[in-house]
Amino acid sequence: MAESPRETPVPTGAAVGVARWSEQLPVAFSDPVYMAAVVDLLGAIAYGEMSAFERLSEDAKMAPSLRDKAELARMASTEFAHFEALTARLTELGVDPFDAMSEFASPFEGFHRRTTPADWLEGLVKAYVGDGLAADFYREVAMFLDADTRAIITESLADAGQSAFVIDRVRAAIAAEPRLGGRLALWGRRLMGEALSQAQRVAAERDALTALLSGGVDRPAMDLVAIGRLFTRLTENHLQRMEALGLAA
Amino acid sequence: MAESPRETPVPTGAAVGVARWSEQLPVAFSDPVYMAAVVDLLGAIAYGEMSAFERLSEDAKMAPSLRDKAELARMASTEFAHFEALTARLTELGVDPFDAMSEFASPFEGFHRRTTPADWLEGLVKAYVGDGLAADFYREVAMFLDADTRAIITESLADAGQSAFVIDRVRAAIAAEPRLGGRLALWGRRLMGEALSQAQRVAAERDALTALLSGGVDRPAMDLVAIGRLFTRLTENHLQRMEALGLAA
Repeated sequence: MAESPRETPVPTGAAVGVARWSEQLPVAFSDPVYMAAVVDLLGAIAYGEMSAFERLSEDAKMAPSLRDKAELARMASTEFAHFEALTARLTELGVDPFDAMSEFASPFEGFHRRTTPADWLEGLVKAYVGDGLAADFYREVAMFLDADTRAIITESLADAGQSAFVIDRVRAAIAAEPRLGGRLALWGRRLMGEALSQAQRVAAERDALTALLSGGVDRPAMDLVAIGRLFTRLTENHLQRMEALGLAA
Repeated sequence: MAESPRETPVPTGAAVGVARWSEQLPVAFSDPVYMAAVVDLLGAIAYGEMSAFERLSEDAKMAPSLRDKAELARMASTEFAHFEALTARLTELGVDPFDAMSEFASPFEGFHRRTTPADWLEGLVKAYVGDGLAADFYREVAMFLDADTRAIITESLADAGQSAFVIDRVRAAIAAEPRLGGRLALWGRRLMGEALSQAQRVAAERDALTALLSGGVDRPAMDLVAIGRLFTRLTENHLQRMEALGLAA
């Protein structure tokens, strides 16, 4: 049952996609590069949701009370429900979701290995800052997609309850022990740096995703200026999250 | 936010229960011992569900493939949904679910500490054999309860998909490496022994639960003969599960 990497992702996805496209999918799917990019994106987000499930349920073990543990378990279950919606869409596209996901195991596991929270509070900050950043990025890319796929992605990125809970717990902890603020601010910056470096690695490896941002006959392109603006937006949102936590960015 | 033990469980639960009973609860709740027993039982099962969530999500990390990991995560999410239904019922009864649950932290954590799976297969056997045994027991006790509470408990004990999945994976593993059968059979027997010893401990400590089984004005009692039959049924079901796994009990 081990996942084997798709050796030829574009032709495989495309072949299946074209076969089904004529029946019910939007016209964009007739382009094999578009199909491969959507499969990549859904696969990456699905892997991310599974990863969020694992991390939140792992963090739940560090919860200082049963009540907090239940909050984290609720978030983990919400992420898993998103995972189910994304994998269902991949199946609809005629793609094995686990094949699509397996492409992203290495960058995700790399990110998590480099950003293992040392305690409960670092876990909370990661759940809010890290997931927030990823959600912002996917939401931007989803703007380039057909309406159905975009809707599924946008719903799967809805806040699973992290924000209010994390802000409350982190601010309370810093109020009780102000020295914590420095360490957690450093942690937030590190999360941003590691996330960007993994995103660059994925962009360099996944041609179809990059091609998606370069546009198509009936799709807008993202030029260098637009990419610059995207990074500005991501950074601004990150700063707002750090501020919400009471942390210097 | 730490849970403090309820020092006087019967009067507290009863006071709240009686206050609400006249409005909407079945007549049985006018008996403070009944109220306390229901709170205990719901608290124990809710703790068990949270515990199952934690264990299944922990086991998911040992999964040999992404596909198996997703199966375990799905079971964990199902258990969490049961947890939500049980805690909602406790809240309806005017009881803080986390107070009710905290009474059972020690026996549950004791059981899990003594039965930490050494690998993926031991985790699967525990999910099936351990949860099956607990579900059988709670279902028997639920027969002594009002219809609403019984329905909530029965639904929360529905198989979260463990059975078919575990039977498939364990039988396949033993077929591939027959020596595994001996170790897993020993493990199944140990799970049964540890579960019974923790159940006895809970029975000795929780007077209201024991009183419930002794009956009331309008409720049947469980005499020694009936308790003997209960244990026979639990044992028989356990043997059936071991057999389904292809293990000697």
